[in-house]
Amino acid sequence: MKKFIKAPTKFYFHYPFPVTVVATKYEGKINMMSAVWHTQLSFDPPLYGVLISRKRYSHSLIEKSKVFTLNFIDYEYMETVAFVGSVSGRDYDKAHVFDIPLEDGRMVDVPVLSESYAAYECELYDMKEYGDHTLFVGKIVGVHYDSELYYGEKFHPKVEHIFPVLYIGDETYLTTDPTTKKRYTKEDVAEFIKKWQNE
Amino acid sequence: MKKFIKAPTKFYFHYPFPVTVVATKYEGKINMMSAVWHTQLSFDPPLYGVLISRKRYSHSLIEKSKVFTLNFIDYEYMETVAFVGSVSGRDYDKAHVFDIPLEDGRMVDVPVLSESYAAYECELYDMKEYGDHTLFVGKIVGVHYDSELYYGEKFHPKVEHIFPVLYIGDETYLTTDPTTKKRYTKEDVAEFIKKWQNE
Repeated sequence: MKKFIKAPTKFYFHYPFPVTVVATKYEGKINMMSAVWHTQLSFDPPLYGVLISRKRYSHSLIEKSKVFTLNFIDYEYMETVAFVGSVSGRDYDKAHVFDIPLEDGRMVDVPVLSESYAAYECELYDMKEYGDHTLFVGKIVGVHYDSELYYGEKFHPKVEHIFPVLYIGDETYLTTDPTTKKRYTKEDVAEFIKKWQNE
Repeated sequence: MKKFIKAPTKFYFHYPFPVTVVATKYEGKINMMSAVWHTQLSFDPPLYGVLISRKRYSHSLIEKSKVFTLNFIDYEYMETVAFVGSVSGRDYDKAHVFDIPLEDGRMVDVPVLSESYAAYECELYDMKEYGDHTLFVGKIVGVHYDSELYYGEKFHPKVEHIFPVLYIGDETYLTTDPTTKKRYTKEDVAEFIKKWQNE
């Protein structure tokens, strides 16, 4: 049944949403957290934004280090996402406790997760407060990716091989169904319009 | 094979990503576009951001009207998403050509799409340029939703019933696989840590 309400303060109407793991390093201390609020912002320069609550340990780390990585994790490693999203780096050295395999960044001194199918190395470009969160804008200076999972010059994912971790709230995760893959091209749309014009 | 490159200007490494349809209305003229770059920004106040290129017709409409709606569409209606993402509102009255069912907004004078499982009515809260796109920040002032698709006080989606349109680039879409749904709770993590501490 269709309903209408004025906006509540906590809601998940637009979920599921893909998760990214934000990795940070400051004075030798590595931390990771999972984030569900994130988006690309610009092609040129390549900018990516992630929202982090001021309460989070990662917030203070990035403020100081001004670098971070964004890691896109295969559903196979969903537990890693759940782990790093459930406890604070103030209390635990997460990479150590959860035995998370890491590799060194190439452009910034922050690790990337080996379990990621793609990871962005970011330099802090801008910070902006929005309500109870801060938008951290990173300029992407390097990309780690598994070349067998992508095709073409623009690096499109092969849906049969990439299974992102999607979060729907309530500590619940799922992933994609590659059999639902469907192309709908500009030519298909042009044909539809042509028919419509001739009706 | 794991590879590393400096960031290219066009890439889809982190896709698939859910699509939202941005609806606008200014001086009686309605337009819709699909957007893949969007994220929630804040719980309190409830803020949501969507990136729109300055070239887009919708960009100029929202600048003037200062209101818009964000529509989350079921995969069943994937063609609507492809349609409104393929042609410009400067050339076509998309709602008319594609016969898209609309309902009136309650808090703002912008329609919502009947094909959406959830839609946010937004008042423009902030605008900020990031590279080649503008971040339009909307304050969510109303939510349309199908009450049978959500549960609990925070409106969590029932994954067996909500099939978001996910975009992977290259005019290709897919959706989720509800059978992959998996919970991983704070208690599961606590138990893992307890075992780790006793080892």
